[in-house]
Amino acid sequence: MKLASYNDGSLDGQLHVVSRDLARTARADVPSLLAALQNWDAAAPALQALSDRVNNSGDFPPFDPALCMAPLPRAPAWLDASAFLNHGRLMDQAFGNDPIPDFETIPLVYQGASDDFRGPMGNVEFPSQADMIDMEGEFGVILGHVPMGTDAPACLGAVRLLVQINDWSLRAFGPREMRCGFGFVQAKPATGFAPLAITPDEITPHWDSGRIHLPLHVWINDRPVGRAHGGEMHFDFGQIIAHCARTRHLTAGTIIGSGTVSNADRAAGSSCISEIRVIEKIDQGTPKTPFLSYGDRVRMQAQMPDGSLPFGTLDQRVVPA
Amino acid sequence: MKLASYNDGSLDGQLHVVSRDLARTARADVPSLLAALQNWDAAAPALQALSDRVNNSGDFPPFDPALCMAPLPRAPAWLDASAFLNHGRLMDQAFGNDPIPDFETIPLVYQGASDDFRGPMGNVEFPSQADMIDMEGEFGVILGHVPMGTDAPACLGAVRLLVQINDWSLRAFGPREMRCGFGFVQAKPATGFAPLAITPDEITPHWDSGRIHLPLHVWINDRPVGRAHGGEMHFDFGQIIAHCARTRHLTAGTIIGSGTVSNADRAAGSSCISEIRVIEKIDQGTPKTPFLSYGDRVRMQAQMPDGSLPFGTLDQRVVPA
Repeated sequence: MKLASYNDGSLDGQLHVVSRDLARTARADVPSLLAALQNWDAAAPALQALSDRVNNSGDFPPFDPALCMAPLPRAPAWLDASAFLNHGRLMDQAFGNDPIPDFETIPLVYQGASDDFRGPMGNVEFPSQADMIDMEGEFGVILGHVPMGTDAPACLGAVRLLVQINDWSLRAFGPREMRCGFGFVQAKPATGFAPLAITPDEITPHWDSGRIHLPLHVWINDRPVGRAHGGEMHFDFGQIIAHCARTRHLTAGTIIGSGTVSNADRAAGSSCISEIRVIEKIDQGTPKTPFLSYGDRVRMQAQMPDGSLPFGTLDQRVVPA
Repeated sequence: MKLASYNDGSLDGQLHVVSRDLARTARADVPSLLAALQNWDAAAPALQALSDRVNNSGDFPPFDPALCMAPLPRAPAWLDASAFLNHGRLMDQAFGNDPIPDFETIPLVYQGASDDFRGPMGNVEFPSQADMIDMEGEFGVILGHVPMGTDAPACLGAVRLLVQINDWSLRAFGPREMRCGFGFVQAKPATGFAPLAITPDEITPHWDSGRIHLPLHVWINDRPVGRAHGGEMHFDFGQIIAHCARTRHLTAGTIIGSGTVSNADRAAGSSCISEIRVIEKIDQGTPKTPFLSYGDRVRMQAQMPDGSLPFGTLDQRVVPA
């Protein structure tokens, strides 16, 4: 099933079920997606039954992504990995960082702000263009409760929903914050989400071995810049979740990110501008693609082989705060 | 006024008002402290009126800290600074890190887990003694809504409540996570809180210039190890909040930590074991105080000059998960 949260003025939004073809929607009986996740075994059957009705009847109102908040407008936690090693290697070059010794064996994860996510459409406010505004196209998973110490295979079993993310980033702050070792605060403003959180069966057989095996298409102002494939993720989501749950419980509704989807094959393009710039620097001696300016529009959508959009479209415009 | 959250089986607990002498308590009409913070201007007058009644009448039930969760059992965000530079300098020596160039001008802040805090008493579960279990005694503030870009003086005006914190830390993971630059995930398990969140007037005149000017007394198994003074904080809370709000909104209920309370005067002792160990290494060639073992008890309490305890007592025992 596909789930969305309509903006009803509340902090968590009103949960809606959306048809597979994104044409129709129905209001769920559960107040919010967070409430459903906190009581998933009780909530899921009714949501699935409603999903079946929405998929099999035209008697429901049209789905309007412009009414959507992020599927979880606020989550208990947002833990974002850097699981595409090609991205990590390019960012080390972009930031001038030394490579991390156990880069291929221990997932890199930072904890980001989870109390104020951005919905899929409309304006996203930034305080200054001088902050080097960048995007990061990612996949993510939303979890049920994961007890401390759960192993990677069992962690995969706690995946309830899949999501598609734009992890907005400010590169003026990133290198300094990394060198301090305390992780990202100023470098990571509010994160954006595509409208639909979906159960893994919605993309069968492309949810496999803890990875989303779909291309993520990215445009800047209608110029295509990336179509990197999610299957190239080095760590699977189970490994990343287990890393995060090593010394803490993860509460229901926690969101885990893949990090920027990135492929070694240069023909796949990039899901963030910093990658584009460092490749330009390597190939041509100097970066050419600018960071984002006010008025620029970023669009991202994962695509199924038949061209359908399992998560809908993330389509946001950069504006001044 | 002094506020506590009794464990009623809900995620947020039931808000209670506690008398200044910690003797009596009354159930608040607001369901939770988080709900009160999200609508503070409406909620505060009734809470203050109830506080006045609890302070002036014996007709209320006794306050029982054993029934308390953390004042905010879950918060929208937990952003913890390292604002006592003496602690930062000692930790750099303990971890073998190079000093950070702008250490004295830009606050260091990491984002930690805010969805599963620990209450003031009872057992705290850790997966392994080999993880080098340590405590960090801190002060903190709970905020109202802070819009992105708010300056430091206005940020101070958003401080609603003061809290006292044990930022449990696992030193086996800290150095590696710092070197990776992504901040702390495995190194920072669930954080503990003293029972009472208090309005700043409760410690008049010791809340001054954005700092809590009180000593934080710390014991390990009834052995006193620290009484460092909160007034030595290099950055005030307004500066730390403004740093965090530079590129994001901070939503109501966000908790900002001071980092380990630490004084240059060695006679003040330490609020964490890593500091004790690095001082032992400097002075005696080798660290002698062990990290915590299962069964060890950690007690922390800020004290007013008259010996009263504005936040109550944080008194937790380390146990296996």
